[in-house]
Amino acid sequence: MEKKRKVTIILFSGDMDKALAALNISIGAVSMGMEASIFFTFWGLNLLRKKKSMWRGKNFLQRLMTLLNRGGSEKLPLSKFNMLGMGPVFMKMLMKQKNMLSLEEALKLAREMGVKMIACTITMGVMGISREEMREDIVDSYAGVSTYLENAEESSITLFI
Amino acid sequence: MEKKRKVTIILFSGDMDKALAALNISIGAVSMGMEASIFFTFWGLNLLRKKKSMWRGKNFLQRLMTLLNRGGSEKLPLSKFNMLGMGPVFMKMLMKQKNMLSLEEALKLAREMGVKMIACTITMGVMGISREEMREDIVDSYAGVSTYLENAEESSITLFI
Amino acid sequence: MEKKRKVTIILFSGDMDKALAALNISIGAVSMGMEASIFFTFWGLNLLRKKKSMWRGKNFLQRLMTLLNRGGSEKLPLSKFNMLGMGPVFMKMLMKQKNMLSLEEALKLAREMGVKMIACTITMGVMGISREEMREDIVDSYAGVSTYLENAEESSITLFI
Repeated sequence: MEKKRKVTIILFSGDMDKALAALNISIGAVSMGMEASIFFTFWGLNLLRKKKSMWRGKNFLQRLMTLLNRGGSEKLPLSKFNMLGMGPVFMKMLMKQKNMLSLEEALKLAREMGVKMIACTITMGVMGISREEMREDIVDSYAGVSTYLENAEESSITLFI
Repeated sequence: MEKKRKVTIILFSGDMDKALAALNISIGAVSMGMEASIFFTFWGLNLLRKKKSMWRGKNFLQRLMTLLNRGGSEKLPLSKFNMLGMGPVFMKMLMKQKNMLSLEEALKLAREMGVKMIACTITMGVMGISREEMREDIVDSYAGVSTYLENAEESSITLFI
Repeated sequence: MEKKRKVTIILFSGDMDKALAALNISIGAVSMGMEASIFFTFWGLNLLRKKKSMWRGKNFLQRLMTLLNRGGSEKLPLSKFNMLGMGPVFMKMLMKQKNMLSLEEALKLAREMGVKMIACTITMGVMGISREEMREDIVDSYAGVSTYLENAEESSITLFI
């Protein structure tokens, strides 16, 4: 299998800081002429969800999951020092002071610059997330593990975040 | 070094959701004709341990570690929303509703399909896990970091989960 | 892009156990004649900070971040069973019993053996970490995402830890 100048990332985490790392690497890659794809799975799917989705799903368990696990790029916790939501507030203020892109800005910029944004259909099913809940302005396509493997196999950089 | 169509994963995490991700990627890979290896290290070793092992080890510290850090694929926590063990229960129910393989089923299927399951001997030593505690039906072999590097070097996809 | 026998790791985590994994893989790689680089970003930067740095930074938020997020290789928590700092103490005792290198010893050995230690300038800025706070005996150089991508692209093994 010939390798391309390409980064393929699985974003499993729904933490704000890890999502920023995934987006910054991808934006860096496309600005250097490489290709970049992010496969959003498990908690990473929260990044692609519309803000208002809560208490949805076909049954009690799925509804409970969507209530606990709220979507939207502005609601993500930090992987460390979350402190009941104060940590992300401080981090956002620090990022603003340093003129760093917010998560929402990085998400939009990555999409505009051509980073492929792919949502994992299998974990969407398990977690009770429907396509109507997903942000059409961000998601490029829906796929499973075989599409991931085909992308990753020809990539020079593969990461699980 | 020539690259093979091969996935080599380090499973460091002992979380149920991350273990599922590692197994699903590996099962996907072998079903597409690729090779796949998982190196279990640190908390990931819990996946390979027999259910009953607790309060073992040669001294107090190792016993405390085995008590806290119980083995068995059915005892693993979630990386998020663990909620004192309720999270994994909900996740298992959601997975069953969606006819998704349980962790134990995925572990057995992966092994049957030829995914190589390798336990890290160095971290087994530190954490006081003996070979008698390990599941012979799942573990293929025991090895250290040099075996990992030899495998990873020739792999087209390398991940740390 | 021709691949080299090279490992390029992003160390995002500030957890003691994950840092040990990153260092052990890198030390293993260089002792097998491969190259190895670690890019320290976000919480991983704590590994490169001098012990005493706390309550520093240009403003209240940065000071709060440095107070909460103390540096020094001896202060890192465990990713699991941290138990208000007791977990790392137990882990260190277990490692000593097994004659395993401590984190500080592994850090020094890695540097001596030629593992490249690179600090991410962008996250240093956000988290209010100045170059004066960094350990000159460990850090090789300071760089951003493009240097990482150039390194990773030619590496046979890429990991995000």
